[in-house]
Amino acid sequence: MEIVIIGAGNAAAVLGRKFKTAGHHILQVVSRSASAASELAYEWNTVSTNYLSAINTNAEVYIIAVADDAIAEVAKDLKLPGKVVAHTAASVSMDILKAITKHYGVFYPLQSLRKDIKDLPDIPVFWEGNDDKAKKTLETLAHSIAEEKVTEAGDDARLKLHVAAVIVINFPNHLYALAEEYCRKEGLDFKQLLPLIEETAIRIKDISPAQAQTGPAIRHDDETIQKHIALLKDSITTKA
Amino acid sequence: MEIVIIGAGNAAAVLGRKFKTAGHHILQVVSRSASAASELAYEWNTVSTNYLSAINTNAEVYIIAVADDAIAEVAKDLKLPGKVVAHTAASVSMDILKAITKHYGVFYPLQSLRKDIKDLPDIPVFWEGNDDKAKKTLETLAHSIAEEKVTEAGDDARLKLHVAAVIVINFPNHLYALAEEYCRKEGLDFKQLLPLIEETAIRIKDISPAQAQTGPAIRHDDETIQKHIALLKDSITTKA
Repeated sequence: MEIVIIGAGNAAAVLGRKFKTAGHHILQVVSRSASAASELAYEWNTVSTNYLSAINTNAEVYIIAVADDAIAEVAKDLKLPGKVVAHTAASVSMDILKAITKHYGVFYPLQSLRKDIKDLPDIPVFWEGNDDKAKKTLETLAHSIAEEKVTEAGDDARLKLHVAAVIVINFPNHLYALAEEYCRKEGLDFKQLLPLIEETAIRIKDISPAQAQTGPAIRHDDETIQKHIALLKDSITTKA
Repeated sequence: MEIVIIGAGNAAAVLGRKFKTAGHHILQVVSRSASAASELAYEWNTVSTNYLSAINTNAEVYIIAVADDAIAEVAKDLKLPGKVVAHTAASVSMDILKAITKHYGVFYPLQSLRKDIKDLPDIPVFWEGNDDKAKKTLETLAHSIAEEKVTEAGDDARLKLHVAAVIVINFPNHLYALAEEYCRKEGLDFKQLLPLIEETAIRIKDISPAQAQTGPAIRHDDETIQKHIALLKDSITTKA
């Protein structure tokens, strides 16, 4: 497919790489940030613009991969009659795009996307479309980058997936950050914990996390828990 | 080395497999649970007993891999003069073993160990010994299964490592369990979150978790956070 990507942040960069890897053509990168857009355009051997008015109107599909609260602003100034246009936000209705074209939808990648990571992760895609053309185009595009990890999902399901995603990535990652800080204070090497973290994440491919639980709490080992709380209190109150 | 393993739970099973893989000989498995001991002995083509008094006294090193609060009981009935004896607990002093032998120590595997997992994970080992013989033997044994991930660590460091380990595995795993429950209630497929969980764990090999954070909280996206809280409240109060 011929694709224009609007946005040049993490989602735009990683989705664009996935599209390129799948053999699609990225006709243009459009972003308010001229430098970020031209960097991605250089990587993909294509062109960029920082004017929405200079958008290339020859693509088949337009992916708006910008921050949730910037979608409305992009949509306001965009007219792409006959084209398929989708945003990538979990928490925003596809209806925000309906003034742009008759064929619109959502293309939500359920993954934590960072442009500075070289290895492309698996990315399950949740999509929806308002009509047959949007549905067919977005589903086909999804399958081309996510193979069988493709699900049609409306506003309600996407919002709930996003809640679940925040619980399984942002909160655990915050715990990793707190543990790294604790290790730094206590003179321990946080890197020694990495095999443990990886094993915990990989294990739940085979068994449910409820069954996989280990540690003092599940053993009702109150003595160890009390020791741990005392150590944490000491570290918080006495060490910078 | 010739090794006797006391215990037949998760730590005993996984350490025993690591020892076998490294080419050591397991002379015997000793456990109160005759069936668990004989199962491991069968796997390792060796013998087992459920009587501590029938322990084979010809090994070089004895690994006591039992629950923290069972170590004292094992130690009380054991005499192994001249042998090296170590327990595997983070939170227990090596001195608990000093009536057994002159050469004692700790052999603490910093990993979440489960016997029903086939693939052996990387296991950093934190060891200490009371004298040269115990030190040399336990350090050599550690290097044989953990290569360069081997650190000498006293009571204080081990206890603090254990605190950090609980923070990075048990608490995140509990969040995975809560998310799985939420997905079940809401008709979502928890398995779709697995690539996200794996990516989060792997990413912090390259960048610090503090730098790796994503999500609505780090973006100060209060609108999304409020939507998420409302959805969670609704799910908790209205769905079984």
